[in-house]
Amino acid sequence: MFATLKFAALLLAVVVCWATQDYDYNDAEIDEEPTLGDSPYGSLWPLPQKVQISTVVFKLSGASFHIFDAKESSSGASCRLLQNAYRSQLVYKDEYGAKSINRTDIHDFPRFAHRGLLLDTSRHFLPIKVILANLEAMAWNKFNVFHWHIVDDPSFPYLSRTFPQLSQHGAYQGIRVVPEFDTPGHTQSWGKGQKDLLTPCYSGASPSGSFGPVNPMLNTTYDFMSMFFKEVSTVFPDAYVHLGGDEVNFSCWKSNPDIQKFMEQKGFGMDYSKLESFYSQRLLDIVTTTNKGYMIWQEVFDNGVKADSLIHMWKGNQQQYQAEMMRVTASGYQTLLSTPWYLNRISYGQDWQATYKVDPQNFNGTDTQKKLVIGGEACLWGEYVDATNLTPRLWPRASAVGERLWSDRDVRDLNDAYSRLAKHRCRMVQRGIPAEPLFTGYCAHEYKGV
Amino acid sequence: MFATLKFAALLLAVVVCWATQDYDYNDAEIDEEPTLGDSPYGSLWPLPQKVQISTVVFKLSGASFHIFDAKESSSGASCRLLQNAYRSQLVYKDEYGAKSINRTDIHDFPRFAHRGLLLDTSRHFLPIKVILANLEAMAWNKFNVFHWHIVDDPSFPYLSRTFPQLSQHGAYQGIRVVPEFDTPGHTQSWGKGQKDLLTPCYSGASPSGSFGPVNPMLNTTYDFMSMFFKEVSTVFPDAYVHLGGDEVNFSCWKSNPDIQKFMEQKGFGMDYSKLESFYSQRLLDIVTTTNKGYMIWQEVFDNGVKADSLIHMWKGNQQQYQAEMMRVTASGYQTLLSTPWYLNRISYGQDWQATYKVDPQNFNGTDTQKKLVIGGEACLWGEYVDATNLTPRLWPRASAVGERLWSDRDVRDLNDAYSRLAKHRCRMVQRGIPAEPLFTGYCAHEYKGV
Repeated sequence: MFATLKFAALLLAVVVCWATQDYDYNDAEIDEEPTLGDSPYGSLWPLPQKVQISTVVFKLSGASFHIFDAKESSSGASCRLLQNAYRSQLVYKDEYGAKSINRTDIHDFPRFAHRGLLLDTSRHFLPIKVILANLEAMAWNKFNVFHWHIVDDPSFPYLSRTFPQLSQHGAYQGIRVVPEFDTPGHTQSWGKGQKDLLTPCYSGASPSGSFGPVNPMLNTTYDFMSMFFKEVSTVFPDAYVHLGGDEVNFSCWKSNPDIQKFMEQKGFGMDYSKLESFYSQRLLDIVTTTNKGYMIWQEVFDNGVKADSLIHMWKGNQQQYQAEMMRVTASGYQTLLSTPWYLNRISYGQDWQATYKVDPQNFNGTDTQKKLVIGGEACLWGEYVDATNLTPRLWPRASAVGERLWSDRDVRDLNDAYSRLAKHRCRMVQRGIPAEPLFTGYCAHEYKGV
Repeated sequence: MFATLKFAALLLAVVVCWATQDYDYNDAEIDEEPTLGDSPYGSLWPLPQKVQISTVVFKLSGASFHIFDAKESSSGASCRLLQNAYRSQLVYKDEYGAKSINRTDIHDFPRFAHRGLLLDTSRHFLPIKVILANLEAMAWNKFNVFHWHIVDDPSFPYLSRTFPQLSQHGAYQGIRVVPEFDTPGHTQSWGKGQKDLLTPCYSGASPSGSFGPVNPMLNTTYDFMSMFFKEVSTVFPDAYVHLGGDEVNFSCWKSNPDIQKFMEQKGFGMDYSKLESFYSQRLLDIVTTTNKGYMIWQEVFDNGVKADSLIHMWKGNQQQYQAEMMRVTASGYQTLLSTPWYLNRISYGQDWQATYKVDPQNFNGTDTQKKLVIGGEACLWGEYVDATNLTPRLWPRASAVGERLWSDRDVRDLNDAYSRLAKHRCRMVQRGIPAEPLFTGYCAHEYKGV
């Protein structure tokens, strides 16, 4: 995708937040100190692939400058994509407050095709309003995949009638919606509404009353999954569905005498990862009949399932995930990176910098292998997040991932990024998203809410 | 302060959030798991000193149950203290939704007299609305001192006309307002408006153009401080002012030849902490003439100043601050603890637990020494905090400090606290404060904002 944007076509008299950052740093002992200097790229975020800003400045008068949609235009005012493009990041106020723009040539396209963000609606309730506001912010940061971790152990808030505007249209402002239905683990909430779906755990010779992962030995399990994913395939139009497959705890399966017999019959010995693969392979075959592609967490690959899947990295330290990406791509699978982008994990200070330094193609492999990395996803798991704190925890930290997935691999100057990101976060604040501050400073238009 | 509250006088038909927590924990590998069990004390927070809840239940009808202020009442509807007391945490809904209360006897008083919260309006702008909302939440959590870190290096937002309702009245809902004017360090912003107040730093033989701490050798410095603190003493009616005194960097003083000569004249040798003490002692003498008491950060004590001050702990690890509290109280000074309660420092997970486990009197010392600990303060420094994220970052984490400072020292059962605090945070959410979740779960009345 190439887009050539000439300055003149894209201007609109929109007040853009152009915050003058003015700091004094004198307690070096306790504060982290980013080196401040104004970026030559102003507030652009994520940085376009190629941008040349000339010194030729044009002043814009709200009274005389307008953008008209031509009468014969087939898109016009109803085209959200164009309307959003008009809110150009290039307009700024000069020292006298006059709206200004420099003559600018931009050639732009994304480095990675898959630029995702995971939100988790199982561990806490998220109002639709909050999800929609964050989808809007995703668009500003050029994310194009909403990975909806819709259900998990704590709750099962999937009901197609509940979210008609998301599940029927399946896309919002150019953002794909990929739902995740994670099995066979993380399914406690499924068991409450579907009898015999989960494996009964045993305590000694008798059932303990608790339940483990999906029961992989029953035909009824696969009948249920067939019907369920057939419905899901019609509710969500995207070409992919995320099938999870992470963190399957074998202890319950091991405790169950019927499962033990099944393992013997199948010749799996004591290797329960073979049982997991048995389940996963049958599930993938079922989903294939719905004409969907699928993404799976890396364990499904680790356990040896054979399928044309997109493998999603989430485990390990840097050395471990880079080795895993080498193995996955050497096997010819496409892959997505999330391990270093678990934004639910917080720490004191400017943790966006570590997020920003990551490069998804930084592992040992051939050029062919590197091309199998189709992108990544920032993940905000929901254990400690609900509507009270989701938005400021997500932005502008996710913006760092947004630029890494969009801009050229050589765009990695932390000081330049800091200067642009501080302005970009002020712009988000001005547009109503309570994006938290990077460090001491102020915006021309501060957030006024509680 | 003793208060005996009998149930009957305190009821009002207020809908209280009584959230039923209902969790499934099955991924022990990744989630921290508090042991859930309903507290026998319901949603009470902080726990009263003595509380006996009987099994005798009364049903309250909104139609027939009212509280009237007697005609001859001198307080009545205009008394906020009573009106707030009516919003009793003891009312709950039974399984049929009926408002109910158990016959309950409460004897209550605070363990510590000083239960403070520091907010920092220098490093980021905080709208008055946000400060007032958090003062309201402070009252719910029985904090009684707002330590206002009003100015610092980055900005000087003190102007008595700017905050008339805070600075004129100086108290809000029973909360004292103690302003901090931190000198001689942390004063970069002062220098911008007051010529010759700060020390000119030298680079070799000539001034470098930058400035260091307040200049302690000029009489004009003390003239300025006399006039300034005289005004402050009239603007803020509280009996105390916080004088700061932390983190004085000596490098600028050391570079300045005039300061070097002054050190020689005074016989301070190369010990710049003596110069700092010289300044501090003169400042304390000045403030004494305004009939105010003062609080100071622990360095002022460390540097040997002699004065009847309240020493505020903020440095070191647990072993270090406990040793310092032993020294400070052995010298007969009163002290306040903040070191383990820097709530600006965040980490992943339930960090309220570490906050809650702290006991301010846990150090080696006599009973007389222990009594010199008059309380503590939770501190939310402003480097990474503004109106976008302040409130959910503060609550319910500060509530843990609130209970530690109010309730008996033996109130330290983490599971009981978790159960009550989860309900207390739901109550704050229902009242409009976006207090963040402790862990996976839900409230009967979730936060609806972005």
